[in-house]
Amino acid sequence: MTIKVGILGFGGLGQAAAKLLAGKQEMTLVAIADRDGYAYSSSGLNVSAAIAAYQAKGSVGHLESYGTASQDSIANLIATARDVDGYFLALPNLPNTFMASVARQFIQSGWQGVLVDAIKRTSAVEQLIDLSGDLAAHRITYMTGCGATPGLLTAAASIAAQSFAEVHSVEITFGVGIANWAAYRATIREDIAHMPGYSVETAQAMTDAEVEALLEKTNGIITLENMEHADDILLERLGICDRSRVTVGGVVDTRNPKKPLSTNMKLTGRTFEGKISTHTFTLGDETSMAANVCGSAFGYLKAGKMLHQRHIHGLFTSAEVMPLFVR
Amino acid sequence: MTIKVGILGFGGLGQAAAKLLAGKQEMTLVAIADRDGYAYSSSGLNVSAAIAAYQAKGSVGHLESYGTASQDSIANLIATARDVDGYFLALPNLPNTFMASVARQFIQSGWQGVLVDAIKRTSAVEQLIDLSGDLAAHRITYMTGCGATPGLLTAAASIAAQSFAEVHSVEITFGVGIANWAAYRATIREDIAHMPGYSVETAQAMTDAEVEALLEKTNGIITLENMEHADDILLERLGICDRSRVTVGGVVDTRNPKKPLSTNMKLTGRTFEGKISTHTFTLGDETSMAANVCGSAFGYLKAGKMLHQRHIHGLFTSAEVMPLFVR
Repeated sequence: MTIKVGILGFGGLGQAAAKLLAGKQEMTLVAIADRDGYAYSSSGLNVSAAIAAYQAKGSVGHLESYGTASQDSIANLIATARDVDGYFLALPNLPNTFMASVARQFIQSGWQGVLVDAIKRTSAVEQLIDLSGDLAAHRITYMTGCGATPGLLTAAASIAAQSFAEVHSVEITFGVGIANWAAYRATIREDIAHMPGYSVETAQAMTDAEVEALLEKTNGIITLENMEHADDILLERLGICDRSRVTVGGVVDTRNPKKPLSTNMKLTGRTFEGKISTHTFTLGDETSMAANVCGSAFGYLKAGKMLHQRHIHGLFTSAEVMPLFVR
Repeated sequence: MTIKVGILGFGGLGQAAAKLLAGKQEMTLVAIADRDGYAYSSSGLNVSAAIAAYQAKGSVGHLESYGTASQDSIANLIATARDVDGYFLALPNLPNTFMASVARQFIQSGWQGVLVDAIKRTSAVEQLIDLSGDLAAHRITYMTGCGATPGLLTAAASIAAQSFAEVHSVEITFGVGIANWAAYRATIREDIAHMPGYSVETAQAMTDAEVEALLEKTNGIITLENMEHADDILLERLGICDRSRVTVGGVVDTRNPKKPLSTNMKLTGRTFEGKISTHTFTLGDETSMAANVCGSAFGYLKAGKMLHQRHIHGLFTSAEVMPLFVR
């Protein structure tokens, strides 16, 4: 029996997630919601048709036979698609309260299953931690921070920490290359929000023309340092190190699919024998953000499903649960 | 409340494990067994005193106040130390049936808790997989392959796999440097057993003088290729790839504490977008085999304790459970 999966949000990330699922035997995509509608078929949705409907008419609500236009698409989908085992919340991280508000919708709906996010900001994860008891009480297993960073790289830090008696620093540096920023409008605005002089609110309010003008000035490059990234709180929660010792930065090239640098995680610590050393995890340049984020998210969804089957509910993070490979 | 830990085997690995535990607040070393005796104190053993007793008189059975000489030390210790939460089986991997026979002793004893091994060979892990049902029925949570490789590096492979639709190869290459082989007599014989022309039996039967003579010929270097290592079966069990795609090799310098090469894991695969790429996890050269093996083992022991508390029993591996950092 396959795991029935839903995707909330059908922008660049949601569509990539759907394409990735099309190659999986162990998971079936049965539900999608975007801003203006939803689509549901208990026996599985055709990914190409769903993407075509979204691109042609702006919403999967227009997908023939299975789509429904709706201005309350998430709530309507949850109410309709009762047999979904788990949802990947491929939603914009902005506004910062959005993911927690969607989690609350699930709590209120009475649906029971697995939720996975690829959320980035510490403050957004804190809101989910506050919901931990409610999620557990409503038999929801919620996996947070399960993208690339936090996600894949946080998990690698969690493993790297095992060699050390004391962890001094965790440095995550990512390189992202995309041919055309317009395919990732929401993600790029999230990145801009981390730049000096910008906030979540001002970045979200920018028009496409304003984003274009900003990128023109930087030759398409966004350089980010000391970003507010939830890797810090996820590692602190596990007692690995204080959050101040975790730094995340990166370089995004919005005009070139080649990564400007190799994404990596370096963890430095002291062993019980008093030696200082650094373990390094480096991602291959050819793996896209979509492959690293969506692959991890579904690996954590499968792990969450195993927990849920054992009646283990509440909030879990990418740093404390091993993602399970999805065939 | 701290986790009460026992160590079975008190050679190089067991002693390193004890020293590592001395720096941990969350774990207390309460029990040790070696070939000729055991020591137990519910409130904690003094690590230096235990090592001194072993080195001076050949067994912790001679430790003042807490030691008991015994020719059936493991069984006697299990029967005596009922409050141990988990044991690290820092036992020789040879003979190949030894770890499974110790697991059977625990099953028969009625003791309930967590067992962790740092076993290496595929065939040894297969024997434990066969015991999976018995372990579960007797409420034992057994974590297998939880050293460095398999262990730390297998876990890194499990995480790295998430970016890929299909995994083509996992290549683990280790470098080990030790100043003096005599401190790791059992481990070095296990390595020799992997060399062409040697078997587990012939390596185990070698006298110290014979080992010395062999190392003289190779200038102290042991080069190993295509080793029988359980990383293969652990990754295959999770559906990551066929065991034939996992290779383990390495170089051991028995006369120099500096590693002859950096231990690393390279996982190559194809993403859902059709790109071939390689993720790499590299251990810092300054981390010793002891730090990497024992650190991981106790991280998995803590994770195993969480499972046991949730009444989850049976056999688990380093590739499917996230080790938890021990403060």
